[in-house]
Amino acid sequence: MTRRTPAKVGSPLSEVDTPALIVDLDALERNLEVMAKAVEGTGARLRPHAKSHKCPEIGRRQMALGAVGVCCQKVSEAEAMVAGGINNVLVSNQVVGKPKLDRLAELGREAWVGVCVDDAGNVDDLNVAAARARTKLTVLVEIDVGAGRCGVPPGEAAVALAKHVRASEQLRFGGLQAYQGRAQHIRDFGERRRAVEAAAILTRQTVHALAADGLSCDIVGGAGTGTYAFETATGIYNELQVGSYVFMDADYGRNLGADGGPIDDFEQSLYVYTTVMSRPAGERAYVDAGLKAFSVDCGMPTVLDLDGATLERASDEHGALILSRPDGGPKLGDKIRLIPGHCDPTVNLYDWLVGIRGDRVECLWEISARGAVL
Amino acid sequence: MTRRTPAKVGSPLSEVDTPALIVDLDALERNLEVMAKAVEGTGARLRPHAKSHKCPEIGRRQMALGAVGVCCQKVSEAEAMVAGGINNVLVSNQVVGKPKLDRLAELGREAWVGVCVDDAGNVDDLNVAAARARTKLTVLVEIDVGAGRCGVPPGEAAVALAKHVRASEQLRFGGLQAYQGRAQHIRDFGERRRAVEAAAILTRQTVHALAADGLSCDIVGGAGTGTYAFETATGIYNELQVGSYVFMDADYGRNLGADGGPIDDFEQSLYVYTTVMSRPAGERAYVDAGLKAFSVDCGMPTVLDLDGATLERASDEHGALILSRPDGGPKLGDKIRLIPGHCDPTVNLYDWLVGIRGDRVECLWEISARGAVL
Repeated sequence: MTRRTPAKVGSPLSEVDTPALIVDLDALERNLEVMAKAVEGTGARLRPHAKSHKCPEIGRRQMALGAVGVCCQKVSEAEAMVAGGINNVLVSNQVVGKPKLDRLAELGREAWVGVCVDDAGNVDDLNVAAARARTKLTVLVEIDVGAGRCGVPPGEAAVALAKHVRASEQLRFGGLQAYQGRAQHIRDFGERRRAVEAAAILTRQTVHALAADGLSCDIVGGAGTGTYAFETATGIYNELQVGSYVFMDADYGRNLGADGGPIDDFEQSLYVYTTVMSRPAGERAYVDAGLKAFSVDCGMPTVLDLDGATLERASDEHGALILSRPDGGPKLGDKIRLIPGHCDPTVNLYDWLVGIRGDRVECLWEISARGAVL
Repeated sequence: MTRRTPAKVGSPLSEVDTPALIVDLDALERNLEVMAKAVEGTGARLRPHAKSHKCPEIGRRQMALGAVGVCCQKVSEAEAMVAGGINNVLVSNQVVGKPKLDRLAELGREAWVGVCVDDAGNVDDLNVAAARARTKLTVLVEIDVGAGRCGVPPGEAAVALAKHVRASEQLRFGGLQAYQGRAQHIRDFGERRRAVEAAAILTRQTVHALAADGLSCDIVGGAGTGTYAFETATGIYNELQVGSYVFMDADYGRNLGADGGPIDDFEQSLYVYTTVMSRPAGERAYVDAGLKAFSVDCGMPTVLDLDGATLERASDEHGALILSRPDGGPKLGDKIRLIPGHCDPTVNLYDWLVGIRGDRVECLWEISARGAVL
């Protein structure tokens, strides 16, 4: 089924049908440029994470501004990016099972493809798949540098696994994946920096231990929007896998900067555009967006365009606004922007991203990796 | 972009790629039959809610078992159902704004279409849209019977709005929408019943007040999977808008029956099928399903196929299993079923529903209203 588009190019914003995912193109472009500038001269490269935008058009813009490639979390996401013209994709995740490994290896015939491992048996499976596809794949060993998620322990275990990769004929050892995911949303600036510095110590020790065995790391990858400046400063990370910076969200908005105020590296560019559909009582209003229009895993969206209003709860297709000034409240049909609590799973709910410049719809971009979980 | 299917018809379950949304067809069919039997001879009709399954194939099966039509929450959902062969759709929600009203009215030329209202201006807009499309629409007045969401107050306000509908040339007054949404997940049986009984008193008073003004209610709609037996017993509700009963979920599984034990009217038929993708430590394992593969607004999914394991947290593409027996834990590549916390927004993440009979893939059903928010 063809998915209905919520807007026509050239229309005013007010005519965008709702709920819709809209992006302020000026803010998006500034975010892309700020991040590109932030890495200039640091020795680190940008490899932005496409899991945030799932949109090849944005990936191509990141590449045009100097990114060496993108990251993806799923093979199907990587396929969508390659189909959209991105020729360099790191799957910054484990890929398990023959069907996915075969697809990954096939993709390696069309583009530069890397993948992460934390298991020797999985390395063997990757090697077999690459042989079947007559291709070579680049493999990063993932180490757990404090996130407590996937990855082998830093040091010895990582060296052993890297040697196993080196011994695999169809695989190239590419370096380390050392993402400190838990650090991204530590609110306090100093605490967030210390978490990354601790990760960097473990990463550096592992890089040195690998070097002692003749294994050099072309890629030492990690970092996110909450910590990229810290990884860059360590001098050991050389690829930054930042994702959310293109859009930002309410959760990142709660991180604090060095001065104790909110971080302000990037601007909010992404909104869920909604319509007031019911005004049952003076202090309440309902918008036409609920759990199928935004993700609530990091809390409710923040309400714009309506002073002092909060989104108190959501059901599947309703969002309940509590108004601070009942009498001057919104009318039926009024359109209101929400800042999603968490951008990544919110973007994944939509087929189209509506690009807004000033007050006009400038473009409709397909979120072609929406739902790409396989 | 064509969405990749996770399975081939005829394959064993173990070959379904993950994450995938799978349904146990035997359990689904029993659920459909149990509900159809539950309304037999009660005077109430079934109008199941398609917002839960978003899948015309399931809607057609509900119709074949006696449903008079389906409910939808969005015009685009209704369009998908009509395109899928369902000729009777109630949008059990307010529809606001010209583009949507025009589409709704157009749909009224192809199928029986009803819609809910709680605002006189919206009634006028509906009337204009129906005139433009040269069709007539059936309109239910929504009353707030304790859910505290949309709807006018029961009694006088409802009568006034119903008269306004009657005075609108292109609209037919069809009755009342009296859904007690908050009652659905009240855990205690008696308390849940009392909430519906209180709603029924308000509904009955409103039906009588309307009758006194010569307005008869063809439809008195409401009820959900948590309370349908109570609405049926009141004798005032005549259309049951049950949705989740086809699938069930962990949240409904926490409701209690009359004996204080878990409710057992329906069986769990829906699962998110996942693969173990990382085994970093004895007590932890990661599956390849996270916030983009299940909704967490009603809590984490329940883990099957792995004694005593719990899903402790989820990131975008990872689910963290905590194992009770680390040594006998799962191997990389093992496949595990999860019961989603909340079925509706979980279904909305997938393009395909994989139908399983015994150990085989029997069918792939398109979730054609997935993402239908407009």
